[in-house]
Amino acid sequence: MKNGQPYGVTAPAGFQAAGVHCGVKKVKKDLALFYSTVPAAGAAVFTTSKVQAAPVIADKLQLKQSSLFRAVVVNSGNANACTGERGLNDALAMVRDTARALKVAECEVMVSSTGVIGKYLPMEKISAGIDEAAQMLDAEGHASAAEAIMTTDTFSKEDVVHATIGDVRITLGGMAKGSGMIAPNMATMLAFVTTDANISPWLLQHALRKATDHSFNRISIDGDTSTNDMVIVLANGLAGNTRLISETDSCYKTFYEALESLCVKLAKMIVLDGEGATKFIEILVTGAASEQAALQAARSIANSSLVKTAVHGEDANWGRILAAVGYSGIEFNPEEVEISFGDVPILRREYNISFSEQEAKRVLSQKEITITVDLHQGTDSATFWTCDLSKEYVAINANYRT
Amino acid sequence: MKNGQPYGVTAPAGFQAAGVHCGVKKVKKDLALFYSTVPAAGAAVFTTSKVQAAPVIADKLQLKQSSLFRAVVVNSGNANACTGERGLNDALAMVRDTARALKVAECEVMVSSTGVIGKYLPMEKISAGIDEAAQMLDAEGHASAAEAIMTTDTFSKEDVVHATIGDVRITLGGMAKGSGMIAPNMATMLAFVTTDANISPWLLQHALRKATDHSFNRISIDGDTSTNDMVIVLANGLAGNTRLISETDSCYKTFYEALESLCVKLAKMIVLDGEGATKFIEILVTGAASEQAALQAARSIANSSLVKTAVHGEDANWGRILAAVGYSGIEFNPEEVEISFGDVPILRREYNISFSEQEAKRVLSQKEITITVDLHQGTDSATFWTCDLSKEYVAINANYRT
Repeated sequence: MKNGQPYGVTAPAGFQAAGVHCGVKKVKKDLALFYSTVPAAGAAVFTTSKVQAAPVIADKLQLKQSSLFRAVVVNSGNANACTGERGLNDALAMVRDTARALKVAECEVMVSSTGVIGKYLPMEKISAGIDEAAQMLDAEGHASAAEAIMTTDTFSKEDVVHATIGDVRITLGGMAKGSGMIAPNMATMLAFVTTDANISPWLLQHALRKATDHSFNRISIDGDTSTNDMVIVLANGLAGNTRLISETDSCYKTFYEALESLCVKLAKMIVLDGEGATKFIEILVTGAASEQAALQAARSIANSSLVKTAVHGEDANWGRILAAVGYSGIEFNPEEVEISFGDVPILRREYNISFSEQEAKRVLSQKEITITVDLHQGTDSATFWTCDLSKEYVAINANYRT
Repeated sequence: MKNGQPYGVTAPAGFQAAGVHCGVKKVKKDLALFYSTVPAAGAAVFTTSKVQAAPVIADKLQLKQSSLFRAVVVNSGNANACTGERGLNDALAMVRDTARALKVAECEVMVSSTGVIGKYLPMEKISAGIDEAAQMLDAEGHASAAEAIMTTDTFSKEDVVHATIGDVRITLGGMAKGSGMIAPNMATMLAFVTTDANISPWLLQHALRKATDHSFNRISIDGDTSTNDMVIVLANGLAGNTRLISETDSCYKTFYEALESLCVKLAKMIVLDGEGATKFIEILVTGAASEQAALQAARSIANSSLVKTAVHGEDANWGRILAAVGYSGIEFNPEEVEISFGDVPILRREYNISFSEQEAKRVLSQKEITITVDLHQGTDSATFWTCDLSKEYVAINANYRT
């Protein structure tokens, strides 16, 4: 509950969750479980890294066997990555233990992990934790689950979105963990979405892939991609809407937009909690020849250490932004480009620069900054989100293991 | 001269150089000129950015007109980038002024700039500086020229390489400026090589492109690419070797290796002087299926902020290295990978980890660190050079303009 309203992954009808401390971490909660009282369509997207953690491999096997799921089990503190055959067996054991504890089929469970790489899971503790979490499942358990998936996150990340399909109100709830870099290795991004919408597994997978492309794949903290990244969505149909089975269903668009909006909210929270971040940066590239070109330019700006340090220093350094578009690989005419910070035009066409440093400083001193780059090449646009690069980022990541 | 021997760009026969203060910068030298007493074959490679500074555009025009050159003029303190038509006219005026001062043809001069973006050059000062530098040209003027191309570089970068072609001794001299990020915009990398070897312009261009691919294109400070990057080589033939005209000439290999070796020396100096850098990191990827795959993996490791901060913190964080290979896009089997820091094996096949933290710390506490990644996929390899990422980097770049 939040402000008296259902919230997070237990907001949609028929979902329960719990978060417990099982001993992977010293003190904090480290095992989360969420559960649907009825079989739910399941879909997932995974890291594109060639180094895939055991739970990623396990879930891909699960999704080949089944498209209906009942539960997802997640541990934090240990990524179960680079752990070979034994790691895969451990991930499958988590699935088995969860299935047994919840009296569901093994093929109805997915698993996720985040934390240290290259260490085996303490399976006795995990097994005991699964039993405990199963007993504690609660229709208001979202907050403890969201807490249990955190690693270096400084706040837990949850949200809820409602929509109306026909005359049926559907609810989507979500939780995520972010880019506190996970000891000792990398940023892992996990997100879990539950919904009571009625939708076919195939269409759910299609919607999730597209929503991920428009949300989690449009954020960057430092450009590193994890071995454990995953987004899972379960849709149990309890809202009672007519089943969505095709992209052309008139109600599909409503569902998709609700899903994308929730994913964007969770993605932005991850950026807000980026390690050492002091500012949230929205990069909007407009006037592009294609959405792909706009996205490529926006990503290049977002990944530029020079842009990120300039924003950190509240420096209206438009040259670094233009340079990042320059090496992004897209076709454009630099002399046509216009750049604004917030509502302050900085660079106009033909390298026309006339802005007040005070005005620029006013925008740059804010905590949330929008950088708009108009390429004047076409009509397509894309948005990307990132954070600034601070000394604190270096401090956090220089000595993570020690 | 250095240790009583000819050095830098005036080491090869027939080259003169000078560096002066003309007033682009407040106090320091800001204009360099180097000159061949006879026409020299000229070749150059330029930034791949779509945002190209005026001198880059000017030199491309020059290279279309001529393959023989007498002089190169370089200013620091102002990049003459994002300056449109007026900027291009200014760059061409630098060419014209230099040609007039040296009594050579306009088509025999190339121009280069580094410094602030988006500001017009103070052309009166530049013109006066060119006249002064022309008068001060000296066969031992290499050091003042190398000093005059510096921006935030903390030391000037020069070297010399000798080789014997047939029974003729040839000399290659070079100077470079590095990745102190240039106010207010980006790292600009400039390098200039002179040689008394006799080689056709076409073959010189071919050699320079390949040598650049094996040196300057294998370093990274922060992954940002400048609008002004260029490498220029002039070969005046005064050594008197039989002219090299084909890749199959038996002596071409000797020349190429000398050129590559000089370029690698200059490239490494740029990394050593990376902003805020406290460590020099050599990344050697071996056992790759192709050189391209090895290079792609090495570049991905070198550009990882997480790897660079870990090395800064002297943390044996092999997981971040493996993760960077994982998202590099190459095909490989993570379980086959072996990683060493210096002479200390860290990760063996099948995720076998057993190393002494003390041994790792001994290697990581050194100023120069080699990270070797054996993919066990094939027989190809590639080397890449980078530096660590420190709080000082953030400090330098957060407030560059102010």
